[in-house]
Amino acid sequence: MTLRLYDLAGAEPDRRFSPYCWRIRMALAHKQLAVETIPWRFTEKAEIAASGQKLVPVLVDDELWVADSWTIANYLEDTYVDTPSLFGGIAARRLTRHYSSLADGLVGAIFPFIALDILHRVAEKDRAYFRESREKRVGMSLESFVADRDSKLPAFRASLTPLRQTLKAQPFLGGDEPLYADYAVFGPFQWARCISPFGLFEDDDPVKQWRGRMLDCFDGLARKAVAYDT
Amino acid sequence: MTLRLYDLAGAEPDRRFSPYCWRIRMALAHKQLAVETIPWRFTEKAEIAASGQKLVPVLVDDELWVADSWTIANYLEDTYVDTPSLFGGIAARRLTRHYSSLADGLVGAIFPFIALDILHRVAEKDRAYFRESREKRVGMSLESFVADRDSKLPAFRASLTPLRQTLKAQPFLGGDEPLYADYAVFGPFQWARCISPFGLFEDDDPVKQWRGRMLDCFDGLARKAVAYDT
Repeated sequence: MTLRLYDLAGAEPDRRFSPYCWRIRMALAHKQLAVETIPWRFTEKAEIAASGQKLVPVLVDDELWVADSWTIANYLEDTYVDTPSLFGGIAARRLTRHYSSLADGLVGAIFPFIALDILHRVAEKDRAYFRESREKRVGMSLESFVADRDSKLPAFRASLTPLRQTLKAQPFLGGDEPLYADYAVFGPFQWARCISPFGLFEDDDPVKQWRGRMLDCFDGLARKAVAYDT
Repeated sequence: MTLRLYDLAGAEPDRRFSPYCWRIRMALAHKQLAVETIPWRFTEKAEIAASGQKLVPVLVDDELWVADSWTIANYLEDTYVDTPSLFGGIAARRLTRHYSSLADGLVGAIFPFIALDILHRVAEKDRAYFRESREKRVGMSLESFVADRDSKLPAFRASLTPLRQTLKAQPFLGGDEPLYADYAVFGPFQWARCISPFGLFEDDDPVKQWRGRMLDCFDGLARKAVAYDT
């Protein structure tokens, strides 16, 4: 039985842009597990009701529904024990939890740059939902929210200093090879490039170079995705 | 032969406040290693010249001088293999590198709140050096630098969201017990409380609660230090 993954899609079914789904796409590849991805839209809550909640990623393994990226990653690690470890041991798994939190923080930090680009690329039927839910969250129109994005770029780039410092010292967060920590943090950057032409990086940024190494993983899984060349 | 650690001190020899030295104080305790700490001031570069550089922590193990907190932590792990691991394995050690970078970032994030408090508590002979070097770094007088610190507090607290999220999910960054990742991130918070009465946390902040658990480690090693009750 092939694994199935509900995967957020835009207007085009093959524009897959969830930062949380990308973590799991990469994790599945790391675990050498084939997956059938099912394009899913924000408003298709009924399709994933069996998961007991309303957000993707949702993994379906035979009859079992698993939601939440951290839960899915742990499920894969504990279920498919004969393929490469996502974490690298007991302590490493616990240390990886914070990378998941850092990645969530990155989603928040990147959103002010791409919020309106997302609106323009989600499926027609998702547009009103996306605008209403996100405008409620940020307390203003998406147009106002992104209006001064260029002025926010230096502070965003400065906020990447710790990541930059680490990635100058070693090729991946996991060391010489990527681990789930890398996939978690890569998710928000892949989200951005799949949905927005806005350039977040300076060309010589070591974080961008690491992103390039991530795009090359698994025979270019993430590089081959429908995305912008940012 | 007892290990010796050059440890940054303020006007009072027992006010030890380096965020980088505290990482190593905690790491030494974790490795169950006795240490003689030597109070050291910013301007006492000659005393640590044998280390080949000008900053503490500097560890002296018999005839061997080791500088830089990350290098020292790795030295302790590789040299004292029969005591508890600081990292928890090979992958965990590599994943810990980024915690060190995050801790460096925290030093920068906390400095705008405590810069002037440091000036008032360093040794008399360090005062001119500290003011000049730090004012050059921040591009203004230390008085101006901290003038609006209260207005910066909400943004600082918001920047701790990922840490807060992780520490709601598990008691330590290392899981159920602290690891070097915890000591690295604890360093900047211990730096602040050792040198400044300024309160960085709201009382019910999970990050403050974790800090409390860190203060309790090793029979209250960090709690017993000369510090403010922030």
